[in-house]
Amino acid sequence: MTLAVVTLAAGKGSRMKSDLPKVLHPLAGRPMLSHVLASAAQLDGARQHVVIGHGADKVRQQITQHEVSWALQSEQKGTGHAVAQAMADVDENATVLVLYGDVPLIKTDTLQKLLDETHQGQNLALLTVELDDPSGYGRIVRDDSGNIQAIVEHKDASAEQHLINEVNTGILAVSARQLNSWLPELSANNAQGEYYLTDIIAMAVDHGVAVRAIHPQDEYEVQGVNDRLQLAELERVYQRQQADELMRQGVSLADPARIDIRGRLTVGADVRIDVGCVFEGDVELADGVRIGPYCVIKNSVLGAATEVESHSLVEQAQVAAGCSVGPFARLRPGAALADGAKVGNFCEVKKSHIGKGSKVNHLSYIGDAEIGENANIGAGTITCNYDGVNKFRTEIGDDAFIGSNSSLVAPATVGAGATVAAGSVITKEVPDNELAVARGKQRNVSGWQRPVKK
Amino acid sequence: MTLAVVTLAAGKGSRMKSDLPKVLHPLAGRPMLSHVLASAAQLDGARQHVVIGHGADKVRQQITQHEVSWALQSEQKGTGHAVAQAMADVDENATVLVLYGDVPLIKTDTLQKLLDETHQGQNLALLTVELDDPSGYGRIVRDDSGNIQAIVEHKDASAEQHLINEVNTGILAVSARQLNSWLPELSANNAQGEYYLTDIIAMAVDHGVAVRAIHPQDEYEVQGVNDRLQLAELERVYQRQQADELMRQGVSLADPARIDIRGRLTVGADVRIDVGCVFEGDVELADGVRIGPYCVIKNSVLGAATEVESHSLVEQAQVAAGCSVGPFARLRPGAALADGAKVGNFCEVKKSHIGKGSKVNHLSYIGDAEIGENANIGAGTITCNYDGVNKFRTEIGDDAFIGSNSSLVAPATVGAGATVAAGSVITKEVPDNELAVARGKQRNVSGWQRPVKK
Amino acid sequence: MTLAVVTLAAGKGSRMKSDLPKVLHPLAGRPMLSHVLASAAQLDGARQHVVIGHGADKVRQQITQHEVSWALQSEQKGTGHAVAQAMADVDENATVLVLYGDVPLIKTDTLQKLLDETHQGQNLALLTVELDDPSGYGRIVRDDSGNIQAIVEHKDASAEQHLINEVNTGILAVSARQLNSWLPELSANNAQGEYYLTDIIAMAVDHGVAVRAIHPQDEYEVQGVNDRLQLAELERVYQRQQADELMRQGVSLADPARIDIRGRLTVGADVRIDVGCVFEGDVELADGVRIGPYCVIKNSVLGAATEVESHSLVEQAQVAAGCSVGPFARLRPGAALADGAKVGNFCEVKKSHIGKGSKVNHLSYIGDAEIGENANIGAGTITCNYDGVNKFRTEIGDDAFIGSNSSLVAPATVGAGATVAAGSVITKEVPDNELAVARGKQRNVSGWQRPVKK
Repeated sequence: MTLAVVTLAAGKGSRMKSDLPKVLHPLAGRPMLSHVLASAAQLDGARQHVVIGHGADKVRQQITQHEVSWALQSEQKGTGHAVAQAMADVDENATVLVLYGDVPLIKTDTLQKLLDETHQGQNLALLTVELDDPSGYGRIVRDDSGNIQAIVEHKDASAEQHLINEVNTGILAVSARQLNSWLPELSANNAQGEYYLTDIIAMAVDHGVAVRAIHPQDEYEVQGVNDRLQLAELERVYQRQQADELMRQGVSLADPARIDIRGRLTVGADVRIDVGCVFEGDVELADGVRIGPYCVIKNSVLGAATEVESHSLVEQAQVAAGCSVGPFARLRPGAALADGAKVGNFCEVKKSHIGKGSKVNHLSYIGDAEIGENANIGAGTITCNYDGVNKFRTEIGDDAFIGSNSSLVAPATVGAGATVAAGSVITKEVPDNELAVARGKQRNVSGWQRPVKK
Repeated sequence: MTLAVVTLAAGKGSRMKSDLPKVLHPLAGRPMLSHVLASAAQLDGARQHVVIGHGADKVRQQITQHEVSWALQSEQKGTGHAVAQAMADVDENATVLVLYGDVPLIKTDTLQKLLDETHQGQNLALLTVELDDPSGYGRIVRDDSGNIQAIVEHKDASAEQHLINEVNTGILAVSARQLNSWLPELSANNAQGEYYLTDIIAMAVDHGVAVRAIHPQDEYEVQGVNDRLQLAELERVYQRQQADELMRQGVSLADPARIDIRGRLTVGADVRIDVGCVFEGDVELADGVRIGPYCVIKNSVLGAATEVESHSLVEQAQVAAGCSVGPFARLRPGAALADGAKVGNFCEVKKSHIGKGSKVNHLSYIGDAEIGENANIGAGTITCNYDGVNKFRTEIGDDAFIGSNSSLVAPATVGAGATVAAGSVITKEVPDNELAVARGKQRNVSGWQRPVKK
Repeated sequence: MTLAVVTLAAGKGSRMKSDLPKVLHPLAGRPMLSHVLASAAQLDGARQHVVIGHGADKVRQQITQHEVSWALQSEQKGTGHAVAQAMADVDENATVLVLYGDVPLIKTDTLQKLLDETHQGQNLALLTVELDDPSGYGRIVRDDSGNIQAIVEHKDASAEQHLINEVNTGILAVSARQLNSWLPELSANNAQGEYYLTDIIAMAVDHGVAVRAIHPQDEYEVQGVNDRLQLAELERVYQRQQADELMRQGVSLADPARIDIRGRLTVGADVRIDVGCVFEGDVELADGVRIGPYCVIKNSVLGAATEVESHSLVEQAQVAAGCSVGPFARLRPGAALADGAKVGNFCEVKKSHIGKGSKVNHLSYIGDAEIGENANIGAGTITCNYDGVNKFRTEIGDDAFIGSNSSLVAPATVGAGATVAAGSVITKEVPDNELAVARGKQRNVSGWQRPVKK
């Protein structure tokens, strides 16, 4: 028994008021459609089909992380028509699971249970949900034994049927064979002139195929996104789920309502994260890492007991154990801090290695540099790594001391144990243990008149 | 038929515990009273009267954006007495609408509907609201036909009347003629010794004037502010309303509960705003603008596809299209960035024009400067624009390259295509295409002894 | 009548998934146990006993602010057993109040009321609470007269008893004498094999000792913490309580859901705090102080009308009246600003005094400095206070003007009224009113070739 997952992703989503096709709108940093594909990808042996239409090229270009067969629905003629576009590629012995690219929070567990309900494709399995306010949705009509008889659209429902709380989510699983036999029977003879997938439920009942329903764990799994308010709502639900999961893993969050994780955050023991932090991409925080308020961390690894103080940005950086970063620090791609290194306030580090125990504490720009161990980089130090067209490297040896406000004109070498006097502009190599001075001589002018107001 | 809006704004608001008169306490950055006046100003032909008392001078000084007639209530003798102070200025053919300076979220639509209910001043129209917990409020007593008979204060209400959920909001509209005839009849013969406007309802009923009631769209419209908790609650309601409105316009908000708009935010298509941003005054964001987390933007215009990265402040700045600002950037008043310009981390720009494609990427202070196109301003560059009393301008030509850690002593001119060597202090003009060097010569000292611990 | 408070703090808290003993997990910046001890310490004549077990040493080390007698429970044999460990140190004439180190929000008022219910230790007083969903908790069974008869654990309760909403919180007060007589009678003959303190209720009833119950003011007072989700929930409750209290005192909070106070925040009149601020330790804000968005302030005092702009950090600093700090400023320990002083963007000040009206506005590092009045410290100024092993002081006189990008090599003295030319490296004293210049001479090189792409 093979599994074919058909995800409908052809809609425009006019209410999003966007040039971006609806299913590409990001939730937690990646397209809604990616969330659906990722959940389905965890089902055993799933082969994925995506029906695209509006913005088809954009969708194909941006969804590259999943192996999918694309089917084009060039006209928007309803969900039944959409599924039909994919069926040519679907093995006729498969079970087909129909999902929606704008229903992003569906969980693998729920889908697995739904598939189980088909009993190898014998039954049609339908995901339904009970709503406090079901108005507008298709009601699930059952007979006295509880067998599903039909789905009645809200506008067609009787007064009695309006009281039914169980509604259709549109997510269903059925054998390809049955689907192939029913899809051609769908009629567009309705107000919208569309072919509705929902109508196969009635066909199943007519043909004596059992229709089984299960519920998702929570309502949000089947909540669709039609506008940015609904997207923002699901974003918050998703973020809260992630926050709760982190706390269950033993992370302390100062406020689970004020953390944003857009990617994968891997944590060790006793990690503490203060308010307002944002994580993007793959981030690893080892045991005892502490992140201060309002930090943004992307695609980085932070070693054990490292502390990132408030208002710091860390992107594509490798920070070893026991380091201190921030406040107001910015580690850019290629920043690598060895154990116990420090990068302090108003400092920017890019494509540079800061050796063990070395310090860049204040107002410095360190780019394309290799700094040894236990070096001290004074306040306001700048590696002048760019001549307007080329970038050059700066090397600073172990135990070097760079005086404040120095400029190191790259390519530059400051030897081990060397000292650069404050305010120097270093243009030549500084040998090990030597002192380099490169600054003007002070002269005091007495009797000097202060400028006056012009 | 003319319209006279009388807004009561004389109260002290002791529970605010403030030196500021209550109605001046800001909601979304402007006085509560301004919100009321702004809503009323949109009513056709409204002439506005404001009754002031506590802190009258402060109120008059701060409320300058609306044309209003001020009436002084020197003693606090109740709402009836307050309205009476304004009536001398009111055209006797007018319809009078009574509002409250501490009920800030009332909407124009609701007021218009209320006015419509007066049928050109024939009826008294009353804004009422149904509360889950009406205790403490004056109940609306209706007869069997639903006609309003009286308002019964909570303490005077019978057990049966206590069950009434419809309560008085105090907002009403009635003809000036009737009001003028009833106000003198009010009695202060009550526990507080005050003249209550509410008592005119009974007079209307007595005189056979129909009392019509309508409800506001939501409860918050009629919620009054007596302390800072209530003010904070309405602030959140108002902010959420604005966030929802932005999302309906097609803006992506990472978290609608974490955005503050204190003024008017105008947006193009597909604008994205990350968590925690604050907007003040008039801000325009063109198509495709992206704002990173924790930015504060005031009275500025940002061009299409411009990106402001996290932790940036932009105030009274003009930023053209395709610019990149931040993270940790500060654009101060008079900063103007041409298309594709970049201002990066720990940079401050004030009263300066940054030409097309020019870059100020790191740790720089640019004040009173005119920078041409495609210039590169190195890390740590400072325009020394101030001599202690005067400010001077710096001019930097197209394609100029300013080496890192340079100081440009204004008035300074760096020509087109000119280069300033890193660490230079420029005090004289640098002609086009020339290189200027102004720094000490490096000498290395061998055998130098490092300082020792004292 | 003496009072002995016995707080149980021996549990491991496996669900916290932490190396830290559960009661040491911080809520609002200090251990949960400290909150309990602080609430109990306000009870008249309370002598405090804490029963520790897991991580006993860590608990003893970290709880130093309260005078307590420690009792060690080396094996975890239940609450009855735990209390028994403390009884040796308890005066037998005392009333014993039993509290829990992981129930942190209990209020002194509630405890006082509970103690009052013992009538000098005659009765057993029990804190109970009514829950919407009582499942899992021990139900309070009362007779027809309302007298408490027993506590029935959920699993032992009858269907009828399951409907009881009043549940046991575990917090109780009883005479030491009675407790001493009952504790030895406890049996561990139950599923967990533990001695339950709860069982003394039945003993009290058996011995004709009246059991009186009172409720706390709110549910959160008796909510226990077993995992980090529950801790985060109580953190938010506590923070909201503090925010509300501040607003009642007359502070304007832009968003009470976005402020974190971890310590004691003392405020004057008309203080305004914008979104996202964090306060730690003892912070005093005088009348009219304004704090911008996303500031972090620790153990500092801010004078009247001082304004801290957004994204600023202030730690162990003394800021006088009318000062302006930030945005993006960092005041570190020992920073002291006199009236009207200004510290602006990307500036760091440490162990330094900034005199009246003096300005450090841009991109500067000021460490170990004494700055007089009305001095102007130019952009990019750095006090070079560290030679790699020693720190030295910088003195700057009244009205001094330090040109931008200057380096002051400490020990340094710049006299009153003296001027330092921009870009200078000052290594010698600058006498009063003199001008010091210490920079290279500019030379322009014509015909210079720009670097080319390599």
